[in-house]
This record gives sequence, structure tokens and C-alpha cells, in this order.
Amino acid sequence: MEVTRKNFKDCLNTVYSAIEEADFLAIDGEFSGISDGPNASALTNGLDTPEERYTKLKKHSMDFLLFQFGLCTFKYNQAKSKYITKTFNFYIFPKPFSRTSPDIKFICQSSSIDFLASQGFDFNKVFCHGIPYLNQDEEVQLREQTEERRNQHANGVGTPSYISPSSSKGPAHVPEEHKDFISRVVEKVEALFANSEKTLDLEPCTGFQRKLIYQTLNWKFPKGLHVETIETEKKERYIQINKVDEEERKRREQQKLEKEQEELNDAVGFSRVVHAISKSGKLVVGHNMLLDVMHSIHQFYCPLPEDLQDFKEVTMCVFPRLLDTKLMASTQPFKELITYTSLAELEKQLKESPFKPPQVETAEGFPSYDTAQEQLHEAGYDAYITGLCFISMANYLGTFLTPPKAYISARFQTNRAFFQQVSDLLLFLMRIIDIPYLNLTGPDLQPKRDHVLYVTFPKEWKTSDLYQLFSAFGNIQVSWIDDTSAFVSLSQTDQVQIAMNTSRYAESYRIQTYAEYIQNKQQEKEKLGQTAKTWGEDSWVKPHYTSTASSFGYPRGLRKRSISPAQGEPGSEDALITDGWSHYSFPDSTGSKKMKTDDLSGQSSVEAVESKTSEGWLKTTDSSDSAGLSPVPDDEEEEEENPEGPDPGNDADGTVTWQQASVVQGRKGRKKKKKSEAPESTKSLFEVPEVW
Amino acid sequence: MEVTRKNFKDCLNTVYSAIEEADFLAIDGEFSGISDGPNASALTNGLDTPEERYTKLKKHSMDFLLFQFGLCTFKYNQAKSKYITKTFNFYIFPKPFSRTSPDIKFICQSSSIDFLASQGFDFNKVFCHGIPYLNQDEEVQLREQTEERRNQHANGVGTPSYISPSSSKGPAHVPEEHKDFISRVVEKVEALFANSEKTLDLEPCTGFQRKLIYQTLNWKFPKGLHVETIETEKKERYIQINKVDEEERKRREQQKLEKEQEELNDAVGFSRVVHAISKSGKLVVGHNMLLDVMHSIHQFYCPLPEDLQDFKEVTMCVFPRLLDTKLMASTQPFKELITYTSLAELEKQLKESPFKPPQVETAEGFPSYDTAQEQLHEAGYDAYITGLCFISMANYLGTFLTPPKAYISARFQTNRAFFQQVSDLLLFLMRIIDIPYLNLTGPDLQPKRDHVLYVTFPKEWKTSDLYQLFSAFGNIQVSWIDDTSAFVSLSQTDQVQIAMNTSRYAESYRIQTYAEYIQNKQQEKEKLGQTAKTWGEDSWVKPHYTSTASSFGYPRGLRKRSISPAQGEPGSEDALITDGWSHYSFPDSTGSKKMKTDDLSGQSSVEAVESKTSEGWLKTTDSSDSAGLSPVPDDEEEEEENPEGPDPGNDADGTVTWQQASVVQGRKGRKKKKKSEAPESTKSLFEVPEVW
Repeated sequence: MEVTRKNFKDCLNTVYSAIEEADFLAIDGEFSGISDGPNASALTNGLDTPEERYTKLKKHSMDFLLFQFGLCTFKYNQAKSKYITKTFNFYIFPKPFSRTSPDIKFICQSSSIDFLASQGFDFNKVFCHGIPYLNQDEEVQLREQTEERRNQHANGVGTPSYISPSSSKGPAHVPEEHKDFISRVVEKVEALFANSEKTLDLEPCTGFQRKLIYQTLNWKFPKGLHVETIETEKKERYIQINKVDEEERKRREQQKLEKEQEELNDAVGFSRVVHAISKSGKLVVGHNMLLDVMHSIHQFYCPLPEDLQDFKEVTMCVFPRLLDTKLMASTQPFKELITYTSLAELEKQLKESPFKPPQVETAEGFPSYDTAQEQLHEAGYDAYITGLCFISMANYLGTFLTPPKAYISARFQTNRAFFQQVSDLLLFLMRIIDIPYLNLTGPDLQPKRDHVLYVTFPKEWKTSDLYQLFSAFGNIQVSWIDDTSAFVSLSQTDQVQIAMNTSRYAESYRIQTYAEYIQNKQQEKEKLGQTAKTWGEDSWVKPHYTSTASSFGYPRGLRKRSISPAQGEPGSEDALITDGWSHYSFPDSTGSKKMKTDDLSGQSSVEAVESKTSEGWLKTTDSSDSAGLSPVPDDEEEEEENPEGPDPGNDADGTVTWQQASVVQGRKGRKKKKKSEAPESTKSLFEVPEVW
Repeated sequence: MEVTRKNFKDCLNTVYSAIEEADFLAIDGEFSGISDGPNASALTNGLDTPEERYTKLKKHSMDFLLFQFGLCTFKYNQAKSKYITKTFNFYIFPKPFSRTSPDIKFICQSSSIDFLASQGFDFNKVFCHGIPYLNQDEEVQLREQTEERRNQHANGVGTPSYISPSSSKGPAHVPEEHKDFISRVVEKVEALFANSEKTLDLEPCTGFQRKLIYQTLNWKFPKGLHVETIETEKKERYIQINKVDEEERKRREQQKLEKEQEELNDAVGFSRVVHAISKSGKLVVGHNMLLDVMHSIHQFYCPLPEDLQDFKEVTMCVFPRLLDTKLMASTQPFKELITYTSLAELEKQLKESPFKPPQVETAEGFPSYDTAQEQLHEAGYDAYITGLCFISMANYLGTFLTPPKAYISARFQTNRAFFQQVSDLLLFLMRIIDIPYLNLTGPDLQPKRDHVLYVTFPKEWKTSDLYQLFSAFGNIQVSWIDDTSAFVSLSQTDQVQIAMNTSRYAESYRIQTYAEYIQNKQQEKEKLGQTAKTWGEDSWVKPHYTSTASSFGYPRGLRKRSISPAQGEPGSEDALITDGWSHYSFPDSTGSKKMKTDDLSGQSSVEAVESKTSEGWLKTTDSSDSAGLSPVPDDEEEEEENPEGPDPGNDADGTVTWQQASVVQGRKGRKKKKKSEAPESTKSLFEVPEVW
């Protein structure tokens, strides 16, 4: 169902009840751009830390607009043994509520716009009929303003908004050239009093003329008139004068205030849908959804916090249960069965053996999608097939249960913890070699990067120069940082010292270990922190940013939720302490990121993950690589996120792979706690996948 | 005529010949936004210097996109005694030429977008079918790249772009999971050799798979095949394989290069139209056209120079003859006859006595506009009525000639200097109290601001606090700078010292004279200049910016033109020295802005202009003024430029007025030189208006 400003209010209850009845929700967003950095590699160094990646995305992606939001609700129908789907495709645009409300600016990236245009995207629906929205601060501010005005009016303090305060003090000073105009208006009003008409519409005129009219009429006719500026469709403003007695006048003012209240709800607009999704606490499925989540919070709740840890906590508040199908598909047992994890490819593969196409039916009154006629990159359609992918994969997991269950759906209803446990609260991190996901509920993986060197060199160097430099060390992997630096991963950690030694006398380039690099960066950051405050001047000040930028708090109306809200009964938070996940010390305030592993079970529950792709080291040394292109492994997924896909001449294969047996132990530790709820039979499930 | 990417190439010759035959041109642009500053007042302090205004516009307006360009050509037809008009409405969008071309980012301002939406603007025409463009650096770079590739290919050095350099070295390393796929492709190609087909289209596949195909085929079948990646409408890429002999293969490659050349011209796109306008050297008329001119240069020629003086010189190169109808209408003799100078109002007033509606006719094959059905804010329509306004005003000026000429148009052709002399090369400066225009050919006005005070105060202060503070000094005028500072203009200069004295012991506020303020600012600027270089890091680096940002040069292909190109014969530049305008020293490199008046005639040809509006000092002290709103005189024009128009409660009347008898003297000095060309009869003309 297409939802624009035109039908939003009529649809809202349909949306609410679809969310209310659903077993799970799938979402997807389309944006006006992906990255405003100089090139894609600025966002996607393959050896970013999660903090770095978050900071980059926050800095380079949040000024784009999420302008299409897809929501698909899935409800299992026992009788039909089918999921009933309701798909909504919302067009979103920050239409200013009034002349004084924030005038949002957003960036468009021509490649993204051009890509959407080629997919038949309707920009007029966004820009002409997009649903407005407010974040929580804006909403509160607007409600307070309205309230204040209402109180002032009720107490007789101040004046109604449509009369200028200075107007009652005396006759208006009317400049010579307006005197004729004003006296004509006065004549018309006198005629209005004399005749039986109730209303007089004046011709459209300028703001200054309107001011003169207000002043003159207020002075000449202090009672018996209601004067109001009306705006036409064409944004022309004219004055409407109504003959009213005192009672009628009050009634009109009351009406006006009520209308204001309703307009205020309209201004909150699409945010109400996201609030409803959030309040439902239901599982929200997305494909490669980190940006979707970041944008949703940024636009509809609050500016994103500076710190990754704070972001995780806010995300847990807003979306307590998230599941990323790209991550799911990239992990065992699916990793072995699925070659490409882009949404379109995934959907195709999940229709074929050993998977089964999910049984779904479009709810009555909703237009149905035909997956054979791909409508990719329409947010509603993408949300729909994301949901389909999730069902196929969930059903496949169900076959591992004893007894196997072809349709695992009933579980959603009876035991929400099941899927919670399986994979949600991890978000896919695109194109980081050795950290496949962001862990919302605990510390992120800290893979060993002992085999990684940080190399700086003249800006003329290309990838081939690096291959040549390190030719003695077997296969290497290059992750460009900028024009004059890159990470070079060696295949053997024991060669790092040799490489360092040979470079000692080099003049044109310089090599540091990854540890040295991180240490230097940390020092720079600390130095920078002392002078950072003087830099604010040149930045892009946006009114909707400033209010919460300094100190970060939770979004209004949301309290900090426990990790698993389905179980989040009072008192249960203490119980979580026994969970193996609770014993990591979060990075402390000095910014040191050293992670302690302090597992009560005596096992080292999280070890640094070995950072090698199982695909082995790439053999081709493609000298045609331009310096700016980061040859980080990725498949065609990039085409989904950024039309500037990898060059056909670019190297590297698709699926990111990683080892994390130790993490599974951590998960196992957690599982213990849930034993009483999750049936014993799920144990078999945990022996198959490596992550869950 | 609507022109998009679809019909641009077909229309181009029509556009060229319309420009070629025209007597004059009118232009107008529509933008994705006006100002990305925190609010409108950041752009429009009423006491900005021209340098400040230029810097603000450059900083806060150039990241928006000029996405609709209106061009209307006017040619006088003697037989019909009418102007024949041809209107073009171009939709413009920076569609990336290729995957490696700059990916332009631009800002949208929601109020501007919403305003255009309300006027029926078709965003799909912009975003889906907009004509691309390149600035001159980008064009040169692209042409050089293509040339280089062509040379490499011709010399047998390097490889054609569609074969990866590493591919010929040996068999491709095909990962296990792709082996089946690749051997199926090889089988198909072997079958192609065996059968009578010439062409084989493979299924769409991933970039990595395409790379493997290229490598494998190049190794297995080094001759007899032409392999190419084709992109479908839906951006899916597939490989096409053609069986060719060596001759056919060369022919195909030649074809491909020719196609590249044509695509390159397509990429230059709309810039070719602006180049044609520029090369024609014809009079270009616009309404309040400073932003149009800035955007046109910025998008289609080169990044704007840092310095206002450089901007003026570039503008003179690109548009040697400009005339601003808003400025014309705001000046004598029209100022007395025209109340509102917004385009729509102006057009209406110029239809009525003492003016006459211009006689125009739409050229055959062009859709005609009905001015009764206002299609304002469509760039083509706005350009059209701007031209109409110009004709009406020009014809009115013609009635001052002896003998009077009802239609002055023939003069355009026989004596271009006439209108040159009258008013062009001055651009309207919106909402600066005492500097109504930017003078492209000489130093800008330096009005006396002896009566202006610079006041700083706590951020809680409102306009009413300032009125109260200065209540002893009669009427004042307040121009807000930011939350804690404003200019306050007193009505009597001799009261300045009294105000300064009374403030000596004030603690909450501080008063400086305007001269002190300027001096401090200059010192700050010099201090800043020493550290500015360390600030670059956080700015928004755009690839198309960097190449010319450091040192400024003239746009390529344009040489510096003399002030009056119509008369700019070799040797005539010396003659200009005798012109009264040539004797101002331009601001020197130290940034000192002191202006010397060194008139040979012994008259002080330019005195500082008295800075008082003839409307007198405003009497109302409207306490409802919000702190951020600058109460600088302006009429509804703001509605044209920015939908966030002045509040009806805001004070100040419309037309900006100024005194500049002394400037007229300067003009008179200039006129002497032109005596031989301009008929004596024009003398009467110069006695009427104050500016020209």
C-alpha cells in the first residue's frame, strides 16, 4: 500500500493494527544518498574498528534523507498454514510544519538518485506528497509552544497569535503610498457592518499591507471582528474578515486551537509509525540494516550519539529485537548453501532446495507483489522479500529441531525468546574483513590484527607498488585508507618482524605494526580532544541537531530496556549477571579499548578472532586498481547499497567468512539461562551454526 | 519548450540558432535551496559589505543545485513590430557520466522544495531526465582521459579498457564455487565457434563472475572474439560475446571510441548552452539575478573564486553584458512608478499606464505562455516575463528620447552600447540597506556608516530591548547579526558620540562605532589567515572542487574581456582610462578597503552614499520580532526567493531607496567617452534617472 501525505491519516489505524497483530515485521529504507565522503573507500576500510565504522557512517551518511520507508507485517495464519502479509510503502519528506519550524536540509548524492531513477522511483511522491515527521525534541518543543500559547490566551495574558502586539497601542503609521489602499479596506469593512454578509475576503496583498490592515482594523474596530490570514494552495496569503459576536469569536478561537492540536499531530507524522513499531517490541527484520536503523533513529527519535556504546543502548531502546538477514545468510549453516547474500540473489536462492519458498498470502485490500517481477529498491517490496528470506531461513532452521518442524512460525508467538536467542541484536557490518557484525548487546569482536601492517607512502603509489614491495612475503591483502596510506595484511604473522626490519632504512615509505598505528591514533585523538571545541564554527549547524548534541540522553518516553525484553520482567535484570555476556568491561571513559575476558565458567569465552578469510589469499595482483578503490572482499551487494559497484576488473570474491568458535561458547553460556524457556530440542540447533 | 535529457540533443541546434538570432536573452534559475545557514538572517544582514554578502552566498548557497534553467530569447521583428520569443525550460541534473566520474552531492532545503512542489514543479523531470553537465575542468579532464586511452590503444601500448591488464598473464584463478559456472561459459563459447551464430549474450552475473569470464576467455581464445559488458536499462550487466575477424574487431573498437567521443559531448551536456550564451556576448537580462549568475558560473564554468574582485572579473568573462530588472525597477525613473519589485508584481504593474504591455509573439513551434495564468517559478516562464518587464521599461525610457520612440528595440541591434550604458553590469543586492547593487565593472559603493553602532548584548535580548536602550535617540533601525550582536542605525549621526558616552559604564552590553567594528574584524581576519590552513580537514571535500580551489584563474577558453565588449576594439582599453570609473584603486592585497577618489575632473566623483531610506525611520517597535529575524526593508520579494517570507507582523516597507547624485556624476564622466556613439538625444535620459 502506497502511503503519502494525502492518505496517511486515513491509513494510520490500518498500520497500527497490522503492527499489533503481526508475528514479526520487516523494514527497509531508501535514501537520498549513501556517503558524502570523497569516495566509497572512506566509508569502508576493511580493517575499520566498529567504532570507526560507526563514526564514519554517522559523519558521512546521516545528512542524507531516508525518504522511503518500507514496512511489511507478517502474521501466521494457522488455518491456512500461511503468513498473511501487509506491505506499506511510505514516502517521507520533512515538509516544514510552519514558517518558524526547522527548515531541514539534506544532501542528495547524484549516483544514488540516478540509480533510484533508473528503478522507476517516483520523486514527486516524495517531494510533493511525502509524509512529514519530527524527532522527539522537535515534537516536545512544538507541543510546549502550542501549550504556552493556549495558556496565555486562556489567561488573557498576551494576545492571540493573529493580532500583532503593537497593534492596539494606537493608530497604525500608514506610509503615504498605502493610505489609499488602507482606506479602501476600511470602507469595505464599514460596508460589511452595514450589510447582511458575514464574511469579507480581501484581495491577496503583501505582508506589510497585511500588517497595516491588522493594525488599522484592531484600532478602528476593537470588537465584533475576527481577522485572519488565509493561505491559498498557491501560497498566496489574503485576509479574511468575519463579523462575529463575542461568543462566536471565542468559539472560533477555540476551533483554531483545536485545529492547531490536530496539525501538530500531523506534523509528528511518520514518526508515529516508527513509535508504534518500537512500542510493539516485536522482532524487526532487515537486510544489511545498520544504515536503516541509524537513519530511523536519527530522523524519528534523536540525533545519533557520539559514542558507539551509546548508540547501541539507544538502538536497544528503540528496536529491542532486530535481526539482520544478510548476517544470517552469511553465517552457518546458510553460509555454505548461499553464494550471494545481496537481497535479490538471496531471495532467489531461498526458493530452491534445500530451502522451500515460504507460503504467504497478501491480506485483503493490499496490493500483492509478484516476486518474479522484481520491484527491487522499492522499500515496501524490499521489506516484503526480506521477510520472505527470513521465513525461509527460519523454516530451514526448524528442520533441525526434533521433531523437525517445517513451519517454525508458531514459535514466534509462543516463545519470542527463540529467535532472540538465535541471531538478533547483531547487525551486519558490510565489508569489514574480520568483524562481521555489530553486537548490540555486548562488546564487539576484537580480532587479532598481528599480521596487519600500516604503510605510508607517496601518493603516486598504486596497489601494484604495494604488491611489489611485499612480494617476498607471499600473498598480501591491501586495504586502502587514503591516497598515502593503507593496511597490508600478510598471510603469516611471523613475517611481520621481517617486514619491519627490511623497511628500517626505507625513505619513500614507512611501515608500522597495527598495534603501533592504533596507539598513535589514540594519542592523536587525545590531543585533538583538547582543541576540538574551537572547531565548531565551520560546521553545518542544523537547528534540529543542537538541542541534544552536547549531552546524550535516552530518547524521550523510552526507558532503558533489558537485553531481552521478552523476558525483561522486573528483577530479571539481576539474573542476567550470571550470563556469560555480562562480564566484559565496556571501554572505559579514557577511551582504552582493551577487553577483559573474565568468564566465571573458567573458559576464555571470547578470544580475539583469527582474522583470515577461509577463501585464502588472493592470487591476482591487479595493477589496474585505482588508488582510491579498496579491494575488500565483497560480492555484488555493493550494487544494492551503492550503484557505484565494484569494477569488473576488481579482484576479490564474495562472501565474508570468519571463525568464531569461541563466541559460540559465549552464546552457550547465555543459553543456560534460557533453558527453562527454550525447549531442550533447540540444542541441536546450536550445534549446527557457528554463531548461534 | 521543455528540454530534458531525452530531447536535449535534438533541441541543441534550435537553442543555438535562437541565441544567435536574438536581440537579447532573459534567464532564470530554480534551485534546490537558497541558504544552508542556520537562518535567513545569516545571509542577509542589512549592513553587509558587498564582500561579506558575496562570501556568505558563496559559502551558504553554492551547495544547492541549479536544477531548472529558463532561457527566453527575444528577437525584434520589424515587419510585425513585435518581439518574437523562444522559451526553453531546461531540467538539469548531474547524472554521473561513468562510474569513475565525480559523484556530485548537493543539498536540498525542505522549504524550497516544498515551495516548488506547491507550484507544481515536476521533480521526476529533474531527477529522472535532467540534462547532465560538466564544468570546464571536468570536461578537460574527461577529454584528456579519453584521448590518452585512444592513444594507448592506437600504439598498442596498454590494453583496451574492457580487458583487464592482469588477464593475459595466464589462466585465471577460478575459485572452486565458480568453476562450474566458468566451464559452462567456455562450453557455450566453444559452441559459438562451431555454429553459425555471430553473437552470444550471457546471463547477467556479478562483477566478479564477469572478471573471471574476461580472464578465462582472453586466455583461452586470444583471437577471434570481441567481449563486451552491456548494461541493461535496469542497470543489470551482462556479457556479450561476438565472433569477429581481426578487421571486424578493429572496426568495432573504432566504433566504440567514436561512441565514447559522442558520450563525452553528451556529458558536457547543458554546459554547452551556457557556453553558447556566453560566446554570443549578448545582453542577458535577469530578475534579482546575482544567485543565478553565481550558480551558472559555479556549475558550468568553474568553482567560484574566493575574492569578490575575482568573481567580478570571471562574471565579466562569462556574461559580458548583464542587466538586472529588479535593480532597474528599483531605480529612477521607475522607482517612483513601481511599488513592488517582485517579478510577479512588476510584470502586472508594467502592463498598466504609464507603461505599455510589450508586443510579443511566440515563435512557431514553441508553446506560448499566458501571463494571465501565472506559471511563476517555472524558470522558463520567469525568464519570459523578465524579458517582458525589460522591454516595457526599455520602451518607457525610449519616450524620453527626442523624438520619442515607442519601441526602442532597434537600438539593441544598431547600438548595443546604449543599454550597456544604461544599466547593465550592476547586479541587485537584495536587502542591503545602503548598497543596492554589485558593480561588476568598478569598486562598489562605500556608503558612510557613521550613524551605525555595533552593539553586543546577552542572548536573551530582543529587538524591543534595543529599542528601549536607544529610546532617547529617536528612531533607530536594528539589523541583527547573531543572537548576541546587532547593528543599530541612529537617525542622527551627531548622536553617536552621546550614545557611546552613555554606554561607557554599561556591563550587560557594549557599543562600538561601525569604524571600530570594521577595524576589529579586519584584525581578526588577518589573525585567522595565519591559522586557517589547519581547518581544511573537516570541510566537505568534493572532487570537482579541488582542482581549481587553490589558485584562481579565468575559466578556460575565455579571455579577460574589456568592460564594454561592444566597444572593446583593440586599443580602446586605453581610452577607458579617461573614464571617471577607472580611477578607483581596487582593494590592495593586504585587504585594506580604503577607496581613493582621484578624479581628474577635480570633482569628488564618488562620495560615500548617505545611508537613510527616504521612507524615514520606522515608527513601530514590534516586540513580536523574533531575535533571528532581521528587520531590513524588503517587500514580498522574499517570497520569490525564499518561501519563508517576512512575518506579517514584521515591520519595514518595500522598495529600497538610496541617494547617489555623486555616482551619477561618475556616470556622466563616462558618458563623455561614448558621445560619439550614443546620440546626443540620450542626454535627456541621463537627467531623469539617478543612477544612469
